[in-house]
Amino acid sequence: MNLKKSISFLLLLALAATAGGQTARPTQGAARTNALIPVPESVTFKQGRFPLKNRFTIAVTAVQDARLIAACDRVGARLSRHTGLECSTRAQSDSGSADLVVRCGSQVPQFPVLKQDESYSLEVSDRQAVLSAHTTDGAMRGLETFYQLIEADHDGYFLPAVTVHDKPRFPWRGLMIDSGRHFMPVSVIKRQLDGMAAVKLNVLHFHLTEDQGFRIESRKFPKLHEMGSDGLYYTQDEIRDIIAYAADRGIRVVPEFDMPGHSTSWFVGYPSLATLPGPYKIERTWGIMDPAFDPTNEAVYKFIDEFLGEMAALFPDPYLHIGGDESNGEHWSKNPKIQSFMKEKGIKDNVSLQRYFTERVAAIVTKHGKKMIGWDEILSSGLPKGIVVQSWRGQESLAEAAKQGVAGILSSGYYLDHMLSAAQHYAVDPLAADAALTPDQAANILGGEACMWTEYVSEETVDSRIWPRLAAIAERFWSPRSITDVDDVYRRLDLVSLELEELGLTHETRMGRMLRRLTNGKDISALQTLVDVVEPMKIYHRGENHPTNQLSPLTRLVDAARPESLTARSFVALVDGLLSDAPRFKTNNDQLVAMLKEWRDIRPALDVTIATSPLLDDAGPVARDLSDIGAAGLEAVAFLSSAAPPSKEWRTSRLALLEKASKPNSSAVELAIIPGVRQLVIAAAEIPELKNSAHSEWKKRVKLLATEKPASPGK
Amino acid sequence: MNLKKSISFLLLLALAATAGGQTARPTQGAARTNALIPVPESVTFKQGRFPLKNRFTIAVTAVQDARLIAACDRVGARLSRHTGLECSTRAQSDSGSADLVVRCGSQVPQFPVLKQDESYSLEVSDRQAVLSAHTTDGAMRGLETFYQLIEADHDGYFLPAVTVHDKPRFPWRGLMIDSGRHFMPVSVIKRQLDGMAAVKLNVLHFHLTEDQGFRIESRKFPKLHEMGSDGLYYTQDEIRDIIAYAADRGIRVVPEFDMPGHSTSWFVGYPSLATLPGPYKIERTWGIMDPAFDPTNEAVYKFIDEFLGEMAALFPDPYLHIGGDESNGEHWSKNPKIQSFMKEKGIKDNVSLQRYFTERVAAIVTKHGKKMIGWDEILSSGLPKGIVVQSWRGQESLAEAAKQGVAGILSSGYYLDHMLSAAQHYAVDPLAADAALTPDQAANILGGEACMWTEYVSEETVDSRIWPRLAAIAERFWSPRSITDVDDVYRRLDLVSLELEELGLTHETRMGRMLRRLTNGKDISALQTLVDVVEPMKIYHRGENHPTNQLSPLTRLVDAARPESLTARSFVALVDGLLSDAPRFKTNNDQLVAMLKEWRDIRPALDVTIATSPLLDDAGPVARDLSDIGAAGLEAVAFLSSAAPPSKEWRTSRLALLEKASKPNSSAVELAIIPGVRQLVIAAAEIPELKNSAHSEWKKRVKLLATEKPASPGK
Repeated sequence: MNLKKSISFLLLLALAATAGGQTARPTQGAARTNALIPVPESVTFKQGRFPLKNRFTIAVTAVQDARLIAACDRVGARLSRHTGLECSTRAQSDSGSADLVVRCGSQVPQFPVLKQDESYSLEVSDRQAVLSAHTTDGAMRGLETFYQLIEADHDGYFLPAVTVHDKPRFPWRGLMIDSGRHFMPVSVIKRQLDGMAAVKLNVLHFHLTEDQGFRIESRKFPKLHEMGSDGLYYTQDEIRDIIAYAADRGIRVVPEFDMPGHSTSWFVGYPSLATLPGPYKIERTWGIMDPAFDPTNEAVYKFIDEFLGEMAALFPDPYLHIGGDESNGEHWSKNPKIQSFMKEKGIKDNVSLQRYFTERVAAIVTKHGKKMIGWDEILSSGLPKGIVVQSWRGQESLAEAAKQGVAGILSSGYYLDHMLSAAQHYAVDPLAADAALTPDQAANILGGEACMWTEYVSEETVDSRIWPRLAAIAERFWSPRSITDVDDVYRRLDLVSLELEELGLTHETRMGRMLRRLTNGKDISALQTLVDVVEPMKIYHRGENHPTNQLSPLTRLVDAARPESLTARSFVALVDGLLSDAPRFKTNNDQLVAMLKEWRDIRPALDVTIATSPLLDDAGPVARDLSDIGAAGLEAVAFLSSAAPPSKEWRTSRLALLEKASKPNSSAVELAIIPGVRQLVIAAAEIPELKNSAHSEWKKRVKLLATEKPASPGK
Repeated sequence: MNLKKSISFLLLLALAATAGGQTARPTQGAARTNALIPVPESVTFKQGRFPLKNRFTIAVTAVQDARLIAACDRVGARLSRHTGLECSTRAQSDSGSADLVVRCGSQVPQFPVLKQDESYSLEVSDRQAVLSAHTTDGAMRGLETFYQLIEADHDGYFLPAVTVHDKPRFPWRGLMIDSGRHFMPVSVIKRQLDGMAAVKLNVLHFHLTEDQGFRIESRKFPKLHEMGSDGLYYTQDEIRDIIAYAADRGIRVVPEFDMPGHSTSWFVGYPSLATLPGPYKIERTWGIMDPAFDPTNEAVYKFIDEFLGEMAALFPDPYLHIGGDESNGEHWSKNPKIQSFMKEKGIKDNVSLQRYFTERVAAIVTKHGKKMIGWDEILSSGLPKGIVVQSWRGQESLAEAAKQGVAGILSSGYYLDHMLSAAQHYAVDPLAADAALTPDQAANILGGEACMWTEYVSEETVDSRIWPRLAAIAERFWSPRSITDVDDVYRRLDLVSLELEELGLTHETRMGRMLRRLTNGKDISALQTLVDVVEPMKIYHRGENHPTNQLSPLTRLVDAARPESLTARSFVALVDGLLSDAPRFKTNNDQLVAMLKEWRDIRPALDVTIATSPLLDDAGPVARDLSDIGAAGLEAVAFLSSAAPPSKEWRTSRLALLEKASKPNSSAVELAIIPGVRQLVIAAAEIPELKNSAHSEWKKRVKLLATEKPASPGK
């Protein structure tokens, strides 16, 4: 799923950057957004506020759906914990005295479906909030907006007076979780569902089978989970529990059973399904593997028919994902029976053979009353109407399919395991601005899904790999295309991060535990300073520099690191401020000096920590680099603020130092502060040339430096 | 369960203090204990070590019990996360090459039982560890010891060479969890079971019914859980899941169905069981309530028979707890039918009437093949053989029962909700040293149970109210009576705290989240300083000063505070060191000055935090007190180190300040540093009198001060 996709992803990023979507540029005349994420379609803040002072009551009028009452109870409990007020929900017709009135137009089926009406309106006056929606799902979206409106100041908690009219831009807004490579327990899945509901996502795409694990109980074919999972699988009761939990939050669950490739774990118990005889073992390493279903064996289709029949009955959603990605055909080419089958049927290559397989499976999916969804590779003319393509290739192939009348969702650009910044994901739009589609064609682009592949993700780290970045992607899927202010989304990510923690997500709380483990319980403060400025290597470079397999524990520095260093982000902002203040270079000077000094002087404490912590045995070079880079940055700031020119040798040696520190190393982390320090060094090195220039010349030249994109570390 | 018990508990504490068990006094000639908690019966460290360098393998030889293999897998996974090494378990006869060999003599039943053999031996040489046990349960205890032996230094992870022979002192070592007052989800229960297994506890006493909630599904009488639980109850499937999870860790599950009092929630659905007609609502407030079963109604016994029959089939353990505590008889006295019944039967008072009820219930319990356990109040001569009394009254009543041949366990002294120090619990022994029992009588004292009552405990805070203090109690139940070194147990509590966090407990990780909620996401550092030096008010003074009910959120400063401030403990140790250095007063001066300065100077930052955080609206006075106390402490240290005498007025005003700060306030927290500062102030005030004294006189007088127990704050 991952290795080759990274290439197309990089291309996509390059395009997004060219299109200007990647840079932070406040939307002109943007409305106040407060803590709202995703930003509603229309939000108008007004004078006044509704103070939350006493016991808070929620009244549910009109349709009294049990799901809606439960949703009100949940938001009430959150409000209660957050504000310290007691809270209660009543189902009633008289709503006069309630603090929040929820009016819902009509009851909807127990399980949410694609293109459900999710619109709602919310009106907060100085004495009451009124939420109106056509459906339970719309009301639930509105409840999340209501919750995000709660503010506090000297006078206590309150809701600002506001009018919101809202509905989603795309109907399919998902998160894919790969429980195949690393199993994710039910409790982990449930708290992701809580987080998804908070940011108005509505699809959990559950990647349940992989070379490395078959994660769902089959009562028809028990050797699938018994022999293919190391005992780590979901029982059917647990699956039903997850589906109900998701439905209670207006979230669909779409299961994926990946075939014909990515299927080694199926063959451990049922080797006769495979192209080559076996025996097969659960795969422990990462990559694109050769084992595949034998598409020429009728018994395979009979098996798939029975298996998908069982799964179709278990999962209520109309869509069923059959994978289809990265089947390399290696084993097919080695099987003479398959070769003669292809000759006989006039199938010219393995791509066509996969098409034959996919069309057979599609017929089975249809027979069981489901619509098929699969990765890019499934696209072919012989498929039934109503299928959905999930694109890892990019917007263009998605737009191309849409022109041909095929519905699709975008995942390229939303790979959370690539460890990219929220801004990078935020810049990717499912519908490219230049796609030139008719409205009908554009409607085929249903939305997108973020993907959490788990080669390097454990149940302990998964929250930190998903959140809070997923909230930025969720905004891209829900909010109007015009909402693109990167600084504002980062401001709101800080806030929603707190909300998500209160919901039980552990992306921040896990940090202390991981650092204490790394230091064997000793003082973590020096290590905290280091971990705050490093990021895991991007895309799949981690695997090249620190190879691991399924059995390798994920408890090292790289696992403790956040995907995106907020400290580095703040640092870059300070550097930008300093350089914009040319040629005085006073703005932010004190804060920059304090940060750089901390990094320069951290080394003795870090050395002690590392020396007695075997799990940190790969962290020594990074710790030394941090110290050296801090010193270089301090020198640069000193040159700038005194306008005393550094020597040419200084420039050369300091840039070489940064270059060296950018090289991949076995710790598999990157120092995220390198680009900022490089800007300082280059700016300082310009002093001799600019010394006698006019003020305007300084400004121009240094502004260029400040916006210049330095080479990314580790490339 | 709680209000009146606090009185007997205070008496017990006073006794323990008198007996000298409460003060830290290193055991003479104590063996090395490393990170082992509970300390084994016999442990001999030797020269050499077994370095953990490569993939770690565990071989299970002889009996190959699935529970044992699973236990090895779990400890292997922990080792792997902790050390970064891969680890695997094999069931095999050839053990030569394995790193850890586990030899288990005989298979045991799936569910552990009382007085199971839990002994084991562990031998670590410089190339292998060998664990031997008679039973799976013994092997599991040994696996925990094995895990706690892992150490790290410059050369990496290793096991020290050691010989351990171990078995428990008491066979019943439990934790009671009250899911009645605040419901504790399955995941919360499971992680407590993980922690319990880590410190070799073997009974989960599950308090499932209370005035405030009926927490278990009854298929015979569904209105019990449907109407008595707010929807917060365990399904029977979940109960089975918990029992299996516990059994996998060698832990019995003993359910409690509290009667005839503490039973309001039963009567919501079945008011005819109660003494007065009803209707009944779920109780929301705390205390001893009047509703009770009608002991004169035959239909009540028929109901109890059917209900306990259902529960007896669900819970495999031979013991079933029927509560019996704190039935106040108020409603009985108001029911004329009951009054005439008593006259007719010659039952002289409500105590005797409860005895009648208990004997009827005991016969039902026996009929269903179970042994009865209940609180102190159940004791009467008419009960069947084999019952167990759980004592909240104290060691003496327990010893008295033991003399009469009745088995018992101690809970008095182990109430975790009293928010006392680990040292206080650690000083309480189930078998009083002066009990004067014959060995046969002493054998009736089966052990003890810590109690986690949940008036002021939520699922978010429960881990921090149980851990790490429970580990000290677990040591009291397991280790020889002679293991009493308080400083050493604190040293090991720090280590096991880390181990427990790695197991998934959240007693430390929850802190950041709670503080971020309290500050609405703003900087938490000032608040962290405050929370580190406060403790929740002791026993039940919280309820008097900050009344709450079941619906009140538990998210305030007092909920964030740890039951025992480790900062205050360190501070007192530093003060002791300073005062022991009379009349120089140089030892620890720098550290004390740094701590006191931090407290004195925290006020502006705390004021800002509090002003904009409505949940902290009760924290202002405590913040001011902290600052004033820090200043007073600094003055005292300055007087001491300069030997310049303070005025009498200074002494009076500073002691008055401390006295005022000790008064209860609505924040319901205590400043745990007050006793230490009081010692400093009093010592400084002695300077004028001692100024011209001999060195020995200084030492004597100040030593007296240093050991003098100041009045506890908040009394």
